Amino acid sequence: MSAKPLGEGDVLGILGDGQLGRMLALAAARLGLTCHVYGPDQHGPAKQVSWIQTTADFRDEAKLAAFAADCQAVTLEFENVPVETLRFLEARVPVLPGSAALEVSQDRLREKALARALGAGTAAFAAVDSRADLDAALTRLGCPAVLKTTRLGYDGKGQARIMTPADADAAFAAMKGQPAILEAFVPFTREVSVVAARGRDGAFVPYDVTENEHRDHILHRSVAPARIGAKAAARAVAIARAIADELGYVGVLGVEFFVIGEGADEDVLVNEIAPRVHNSGHWTLDGALTSQFEQHVRAVAGWPLGSPRRLSPRVEMLNLIGGEADASRGLLADPEAKLHLYGKAEARPGRKMGHVTRLLGG
Amino acid sequence: MSAKPLGEGDVLGILGDGQLGRMLALAAARLGLTCHVYGPDQHGPAKQVSWIQTTADFRDEAKLAAFAADCQAVTLEFENVPVETLRFLEARVPVLPGSAALEVSQDRLREKALARALGAGTAAFAAVDSRADLDAALTRLGCPAVLKTTRLGYDGKGQARIMTPADADAAFAAMKGQPAILEAFVPFTREVSVVAARGRDGAFVPYDVTENEHRDHILHRSVAPARIGAKAAARAVAIARAIADELGYVGVLGVEFFVIGEGADEDVLVNEIAPRVHNSGHWTLDGALTSQFEQHVRAVAGWPLGSPRRLSPRVEMLNLIGGEADASRGLLADPEAKLHLYGKAEARPGRKMGHVTRLLGG
Repeated sequence: MSAKPLGEGDVLGILGDGQLGRMLALAAARLGLTCHVYGPDQHGPAKQVSWIQTTADFRDEAKLAAFAADCQAVTLEFENVPVETLRFLEARVPVLPGSAALEVSQDRLREKALARALGAGTAAFAAVDSRADLDAALTRLGCPAVLKTTRLGYDGKGQARIMTPADADAAFAAMKGQPAILEAFVPFTREVSVVAARGRDGAFVPYDVTENEHRDHILHRSVAPARIGAKAAARAVAIARAIADELGYVGVLGVEFFVIGEGADEDVLVNEIAPRVHNSGHWTLDGALTSQFEQHVRAVAGWPLGSPRRLSPRVEMLNLIGGEADASRGLLADPEAKLHLYGKAEARPGRKMGHVTRLLGG
Repeated sequence: MSAKPLGEGDVLGILGDGQLGRMLALAAARLGLTCHVYGPDQHGPAKQVSWIQTTADFRDEAKLAAFAADCQAVTLEFENVPVETLRFLEARVPVLPGSAALEVSQDRLREKALARALGAGTAAFAAVDSRADLDAALTRLGCPAVLKTTRLGYDGKGQARIMTPADADAAFAAMKGQPAILEAFVPFTREVSVVAARGRDGAFVPYDVTENEHRDHILHRSVAPARIGAKAAARAVAIARAIADELGYVGVLGVEFFVIGEGADEDVLVNEIAPRVHNSGHWTLDGALTSQFEQHVRAVAGWPLGSPRRLSPRVEMLNLIGGEADASRGLLADPEAKLHLYGKAEARPGRKMGHVTRLLGG
């Protein structure tokens, strides 16, 4: 469905009621939009800051139809919304990004095939639909390697490391019969991401390449700009742009890369594509003139994109995971620390409770 | 009522559902608080971004009691909440700032008396309760002068200029029998304000002195830092601090000053005290590490104050009044302009619809 730019007071629908939806809703409110949040959690973080809420399953067509009728445009906070949900909505209201981007990013095989088709490198990989496939793949790719469900994984969920062939049985069992992909281990020097926006008009505005450090498969720390040479950084940005163009993408997306090699041999391999605002872009809330959340809203609303200019020589973002949010009292006492808490009642292990940003010197 | 610091998920009550309440609610949400907004407008800008809403008159004691029971602390977005409302709430829940600050700022005579008692200068003034009082005051203060209702004025409401004695009848009639104050005209070089926070512990954190330009009695433009000498700036900050200390104030307050004289003779006269976040502090949303809204929430919550550090050599804020908000499409096209719209449905003349901030070079 074609779309005209949103006007003040128009209703932006957000699929998903978690912290990314919350930060999108806060950015949309700043720009005078009204938000309608649709998701399963009655007290979801995004619902707490939105004027209109629907608490329902993503497959409830009556609720989805009413939601579509109420909104002038719809976006999403995470990529694991069922594609059927998006297709249902797309017939009724502009949905940005649309189902095409989700179909690719929900499937690790399609994601890697897209990257390869655009000339980007990825880890060596093989589809694994059976135990025999896994043996063949291990023979070809070697150990260590990582077996992942092809679909619907995030934050290390649905992943198993295979350090030696003896780990293969357990790893295969962990997939619980779902189609999987074996990925060769990449001896990377660091992990980086490109967070960028693409407007309805095709304008492409990237933030500085960001360096990421994970702990237990969950993002722990991001620093912008990344320690990466200009050539490899430009290549990462060019790949992100090619992906966005190929998908006809509208909104902010995050592309995660492994950095390999050194000096003149430095290069990047595509790891994952996230068709949404990205945790590694949270530093932009305090550290860039336009946050990734505002930028996403601008793109989805059909407005021009804002400046991604960084406001200090370096910006650091630390996630607060599970009980780490208990440190918030101490963080509040640091006048330079910008604290963000997501309004989640229960601090379960591995749950993202908030983050803290610091604008640093050179 | 004494108060302990708020914790994540605690409910912050906000009296008033306008744009200041909206920006307070957005800042509180960032810090993990839940907001309950109380005010007369069912679709008030603050209500659109808050989890809990009460639409009721400020004198509805049943609704106020329920509101108090729901909140761990209460603050206010504007100074014209009835003092009786605050007293009613104060008996039930911590209210910050409290009724003492409101009593002073709602009464121009008490406001000026406080400033004078603290050693600060003000315009010459006289109480005007009768037509005869006005003649006597005009004889003493001369023309031009401004007649203002003593209570409940803002944005030029309840004011009448007296350029010559012939204007006196019309000016007196415009007060509609309310107690008034005649203020001598001050030949100021510019208008500035100090926006500052005082914590529950007495910590005082001012922003840079800000220069303000009014049109039709409504703030049009603010620039930080103000063009003012260091001595006069320090004096303005010291006066604001003395006022906050004297009132036992907790939260952000704005003190407006006239700048008079030049060079070594430069000085400031207190014009108005606003016991709330202040329009001339809106630049801090984009231009300071901690916005005035976050700072107010920190103070009211009993948390340490954040850094007021300015993020660029100069920061400019322009109000969008009435139909000026129609320019928002053009402002969105300027990647350096930070646009804020308040979600007001109707753009009446003189109504504050939004503002735009720009981070400028030196």
